[in-house]
Formats: sequence, structure tokens, C-alpha cells
Amino acid sequence: MDQSPSLNGQDILPNFSLSDPVRQLSIDILSRLQEASFDGVGVSRETYGASETAAFELLESYALEAGFDVEWDAARNLIIRLSGDNPELAAVATGSHLDSVPEGGNYDGAAGVIAGLAVLIAAKEAGNRQRSMEVYALRGEESAWFGGPCYFGSRALFGKLTTDDFNSPHRDGKKTLEDCMRSTGADVEKLKSGIPLLDPAHLACWLELHIEQGPILIARDKPVGVVTGIRGNHRHRRVTCFGQAAHSGAVPRWLRHDAVLAMADLMVRIDEHWRVLLEWGEDLVVTTGIVETNANEHAVSRVPGEVSFALEYRSQDLKTLQSFEALVQSECDQVAEKRGVRFDLGVPALTQPATMAPKMIALLQSVCESQSVPHEVMASGAGHDSSVFSNAGVPSGMVFVRNDKGSHNPNEAMEYSDFFQATEVLGGAMLAAASNQAEDL
Amino acid sequence: MDQSPSLNGQDILPNFSLSDPVRQLSIDILSRLQEASFDGVGVSRETYGASETAAFELLESYALEAGFDVEWDAARNLIIRLSGDNPELAAVATGSHLDSVPEGGNYDGAAGVIAGLAVLIAAKEAGNRQRSMEVYALRGEESAWFGGPCYFGSRALFGKLTTDDFNSPHRDGKKTLEDCMRSTGADVEKLKSGIPLLDPAHLACWLELHIEQGPILIARDKPVGVVTGIRGNHRHRRVTCFGQAAHSGAVPRWLRHDAVLAMADLMVRIDEHWRVLLEWGEDLVVTTGIVETNANEHAVSRVPGEVSFALEYRSQDLKTLQSFEALVQSECDQVAEKRGVRFDLGVPALTQPATMAPKMIALLQSVCESQSVPHEVMASGAGHDSSVFSNAGVPSGMVFVRNDKGSHNPNEAMEYSDFFQATEVLGGAMLAAASNQAEDL
Repeated sequence: MDQSPSLNGQDILPNFSLSDPVRQLSIDILSRLQEASFDGVGVSRETYGASETAAFELLESYALEAGFDVEWDAARNLIIRLSGDNPELAAVATGSHLDSVPEGGNYDGAAGVIAGLAVLIAAKEAGNRQRSMEVYALRGEESAWFGGPCYFGSRALFGKLTTDDFNSPHRDGKKTLEDCMRSTGADVEKLKSGIPLLDPAHLACWLELHIEQGPILIARDKPVGVVTGIRGNHRHRRVTCFGQAAHSGAVPRWLRHDAVLAMADLMVRIDEHWRVLLEWGEDLVVTTGIVETNANEHAVSRVPGEVSFALEYRSQDLKTLQSFEALVQSECDQVAEKRGVRFDLGVPALTQPATMAPKMIALLQSVCESQSVPHEVMASGAGHDSSVFSNAGVPSGMVFVRNDKGSHNPNEAMEYSDFFQATEVLGGAMLAAASNQAEDL
Repeated sequence: MDQSPSLNGQDILPNFSLSDPVRQLSIDILSRLQEASFDGVGVSRETYGASETAAFELLESYALEAGFDVEWDAARNLIIRLSGDNPELAAVATGSHLDSVPEGGNYDGAAGVIAGLAVLIAAKEAGNRQRSMEVYALRGEESAWFGGPCYFGSRALFGKLTTDDFNSPHRDGKKTLEDCMRSTGADVEKLKSGIPLLDPAHLACWLELHIEQGPILIARDKPVGVVTGIRGNHRHRRVTCFGQAAHSGAVPRWLRHDAVLAMADLMVRIDEHWRVLLEWGEDLVVTTGIVETNANEHAVSRVPGEVSFALEYRSQDLKTLQSFEALVQSECDQVAEKRGVRFDLGVPALTQPATMAPKMIALLQSVCESQSVPHEVMASGAGHDSSVFSNAGVPSGMVFVRNDKGSHNPNEAMEYSDFFQATEVLGGAMLAAASNQAEDL
């Protein structure tokens, strides 16, 4: 799809709306998913576990009932298909994941899968289209179950799983990801071969609907977000500031090298740079989520000789991440010089940002405008399967649904009216793409 | 002693110096104490334990050998006496403690007791004086053995021990202070009665020599310190800042209530006030020795919702402590308002400052000048038995000896040449006081 105004303009966008029965069906499926995976506190659909598989089977039964072809791939992802008039054209795809964190919420992931099924049903009812449309229900997006690694289902599509992934220990400490994959019937040998299950060229584009995991749409009072990119990050899991321990009463200010005050000084400098960089227009979030003095030697009446802290920054822009890294090092040097301390930043773990395709962003914005849906153009701070599709070369876009109380907890609170507006935006964009026969969609 | 220039002027100060044999004897006693209480790492002379008692008995043997009267009081402190010509006059007293922290150094406490014995020997050799002179070897000054409470020996002198003191559990968790006191032969019933073992009016003044526990004399390149007061403190053992936990990627700056950044902001403000108040001439040290985010919920990728930290400030001036307390509260309020967080300061534990008597400070300074001893007039940040004597109404003064590497560790490093200079200052001041017959010394 090129960015010609004739495609993205409101005048040629196909109509798309969800009928009441489709709306009711969506609610029914989400309700049944909630019941099936309630753990007493929230929802647990365990990555490559029985509760996740149960959700997949529930979805499959609804897809078959609606008359679609379904396919289980080698990673036990489930693909639901609606053929187009020109099945040789690359397909228009959507989807999300069906797993959840432990004691999580029902909508994080599942909302995007059910939205995809609803779009397929509505599209089928609406009649012909050029391209085939596909819904991918993906396995194992959450990092909570295997100690960090994630996006197993989507990465399997593109042959990106590693030996470390297969060996990742389950949080119960007893089994590995490979064990759990095998228990669901996944073809681990095929996945280990690294051969992609899906040729990126098979997809004309990828669109994912997901609840927002932050409070921006609530704060902006808008039901829908159009995502520009998924922030990458630099993570310093453990920065240490070394000063000099001393008697808190007997050592005067001018002879101190206080590690905690140096850390506070550094943080305030970083916070101020962050404020200015936002006004400068950069995309950036900065977090120190963990701080700890050394419990083996700290005391109320001891000038702290050591403190460790985490430092994470995220941006959609790789250059911003790199420049901020250099700025942090520079500030560490200045504070170290001023206060006679030493910072050990260590080597950060890096996650690349993923950029949503400008043409998909433009399409989603056009659909919002044509449907009069108030929307916010925004970055995604949390990671999503869409970053895997984007980095595999599939033109990708994301639609966020307003959601109170964040995600990864049982209190997530998405309104169905918002969900349906976002699903209609998703469907409108998918139909527009499906009706476009240009080779390079 | 009034502050008349005729007393404190150099012209009427008696000569005082330590002979080589007395110097050698001091070294011998300190060496034997070191040998007797070496624990493999440093020195351990346990409060109301066998190793402390052994040190007392070693001291007693040297005092008897030198021909002094000795007395064990009901708290098993040891008092060594040299009578004056007018024994009905209040006595001139010195002393310090003989216990140490576990794996501590040999000089913290013991140096002051041995200095006192050396002064008594030299004074006896020097001939007549009006007032009697006394050396108090005190029990249990350190807080390390019974979980916080301290100054047991000196507080017993003035009837200040409490039920909580007697019930304090030993760090081994098996016995109480009362058990340990009884094992040394202390008369616990008498101590519990609260009747002072010593009438403050019996003492004309109290002078204590102690190694410096900070680095000021090293930094100033002076062998001797004259102490103006012993800092009191306000201790907030656990201040908590409550913000709002959130997803570190998905929540933008303007919607955050980051507890750690709020803490850093507060600390930098407090640090800046501290800097200015020092330039304003206030006596103040400020320390945050412990910082901890909540381990039950913190994570590298979570905006911290909570952080706890210690906050201690010390000053010789009660008003400074009180004003700084109010200033801290005010800054907490401002940071809370600015960042949408809440601080719970809790109630601080208070320790009153102790002021050294101006006339004793002036006397010690005069002696330093008459003996051409470079000296620094300075506050004591660490607590000492002298605060107990001062707060009991005994005019008190302290002499610090330069000491590298701090105290409470085996690396404390006092030079004997500095020790002898300080002991001659102590002796010069004691002799001057002992030769003064004024009723209100």
C-alpha cells in the first residue's frame, strides 16, 4: 500500500461496522475465556501451559462454528483464515496473544484475538474482498512465565527462537520452555531448525489491537490510540555507586564521599535532562525501579559507602537511546568528580525499538477520522508481538484501546464500547488493505 | 573554676610532662591489653563480659603496683585515687571506658584510661596538690553488645540505668545485661534502686581523653582536638515515600508519581540546605545510611511506588536539630506537592546534645597553647561517657587524639607521639584544676 491520498482518503475507505450479534458474540467469547481461566484472583493463561491451550481450543471452536478454516502451526499458534478473491495476493493479517501473566487480566492479548475474529466474521458477512484475511492467535507473549524471554509464538513464526529460549526455566523451577512446548504438541525439532513457519512476504501487512497498558488514553479522554512505534530500551540492571563508608557523627561534610547523596544528585540531573528532552520533542521514559544500599554494611549511623540501583530508559528512537546513554555516562563522570565517588554502570541490555510503518499509521488515522473516532497518536512503551512482525519486515500497525488500571493485574478495566470502536477501526483498516490489489501494499 | 584570665593564662599553669619511664609504662599496658583481648581479627572486650573484666584486672594490677588506692563500685567500675592536700575539696576526675566493639581497636576507650593512670603517676611524682585526682575506668560504653543502649558504667554512677537497660538482650540472644552484670559481681539490686553511686558534687570537673573517631585531625594535620560538645541527633530510622507504581514503558512522565525520584529530589534539597547552613556557621551532619525500594514489588521495569530510607542529623545545638527537623518536614511537603507523592517521616528518636563546659574548653585551649601543642577546636560527632557526666551537671571537657582509619575496627591507627602530647594536655589541665581551691571550680 503506498501512501497515495487516494487510498488513505476518507472517500474511498470501505464502510465497516460490527453488527449487534457480532458484538454480543465478542462479549460471550471474552466472558467464557474469563471463566475458563479464572485462578481465584485474576486470570492465568500460562505460556505453553494447559490453561493457554484451553483458551486456544475455545477460540478454535468459535472459529469453526463461524465457518472459517483454521490451522495449528508447528509452534501451536492458531491461524484463522478468510479467503479473498485473489488468494495469490499477500494476506492482510491481525491477531495478538492468548496467554496472560499469573493473576493477570482477561483483555491483555485476548482482546486483540477476539477483535480479529469479529472483524473476520463481519468481513465475511460484508461480502467480497481481494486479499485473504488472517487472524493469528499467538502463543507465549508474556515474559512472566519463563524468567524474561518472551514473544515465543511470534518469534517462532519467523524462525527466531534460540537455544537459550528452549532452555528457559519455568518459574516453577521444574521444567523448561521446551518441555512445555512439547506438552502442547509443538514440533520442537522444526522450531529448532530455525526455518521460518511463515514467509514475511505472505503478509501484506500486520495490524494488532491491544489494550493500552498505560494511562494516556484515560488521561486524554480518547477511546483509541494509533501507535507510532514500540519503544526499545537500555537496561542497566545494576548500577553501583562506590563512595566511602564513614561514621555519621564524626566525619564532617567536607571529608565525606556519600554514595547515596551522589546517587540522588545523579538522579535529579537525569530527571532534569529528561524533562528538557521531552520539551525538545524526544520520545523518552526513564525509570529507576530498584534502589538498595548494601545490607551487609549499611546502618542508620553510617555514611553509605555503596548503593546500587537499576536504570532503564526507553524510546522509540534508537538515536535517543544511544545519546541518552552517553549523557548518563557524562553525568556520572561529573557527579563522581564533584563528590569523590565512582559509578560502575555496567553494560546495558539493549532492546531495539520497532517502528510502525508510516503507511499503516496513516491508514489507521484516516479510518479513525472517517469513523469520527477520537484517537491519540502515541508510542507504545510496553513490548508487543507487533515488534516481531515489524522487525521481520512486515508493514505493521497497532490500535490501542483505552483501559483503566493498567495491565498485568486483575483490575484492568476496558469498556466494551471502546473495544468496539477500536475493533471497527481495525476492521476498517483491514478491509481497506484487503481491497487494495497493489503488489507492494 | 571561673573563667578569670589569671587562671587560664599561661603564666600560672603548672608545668606538666610525662617522663620516659611513664611513657614506656603506658605503652606496655596498652600492649598487654591488646594481647589479652586479641580475638583473631581485632580486639574484643565485651561489655560486662569476661574479656572486659580481664582488662579491668590488668589495670588494677598496674594501679596497685604504682601505689594507688583502688575501688570497685557497685557497677564494677574501677576508680583509682590520688589524694590531695585538701581531700574535702571536690576531686578532679578523668577516665574513659575499657570495653570495645567486637573485632574493634585497642585504643577506643582504653587510651583514655591509661592516659589517666599516666597522669596520676606523673602527678604523684610531681609532688603536692590541693585536690584529689581520680581515674574512672568505666564499664560498657559501646552499644554493639546489647543492641543499642550504652554508657552503662557512667550512667550507673548517676543512677540512670532503667529497666529496659537491665533487660537488654545480648547480641548472642541468650542473656540479658542484668545476667552479664551479675556474672561480673555487680550489685544489681543497688543499681536498680536508682540511687547514684557518685554525687556529682564530689567531682570538681571531668576530663576525658579519647581517640578521634573521625578524620578531622588527620585532615587538619594536628595531633590534638579540644571538644566543644558532643552532638545529639534526631534519627528517623525509616522514612517512607509513597508514590504510585506503574509500567515503566507505558506511563509517560506527566502521569508518574515516582517515589525514588521524589526521594532523590528531597535528598538533594536537604544536601543543599546542609551546605548553606554550614556556611551560616551551624554545626550539622546529615546522613541517609540506608535506602531500600520495596523488594516485594520493585522491578527494573516498574516505576517505583514506594521507597524507604533512614535519615539522621546530628548537631551540638538542640535548636539546630529542632529547626532542621522542621525544615525537612517543609521540604517533604514541597516535594510531595510537586510530585504527587506522600512522605511518612515517622517520629524521630532523639538524643540530646551535651555541651562541654566553656571553662574546661578554655582551660584545655590554654594548656595546648602553653605547651605549644597544635590543636583543633571541634565537635564530637560520636557519643562518649563525657556526655553523661556533662548532663549530670559535672563541668566536663574532652581531649581528642589524632587517629587514622576511624574507630570500631582493627585498623585504628593512633601514634604514641600524639597520645603523649594529648596526655600532657590532659595532665596539665588536671594539675591546673587540682591546684585551684576555689569552691566552684
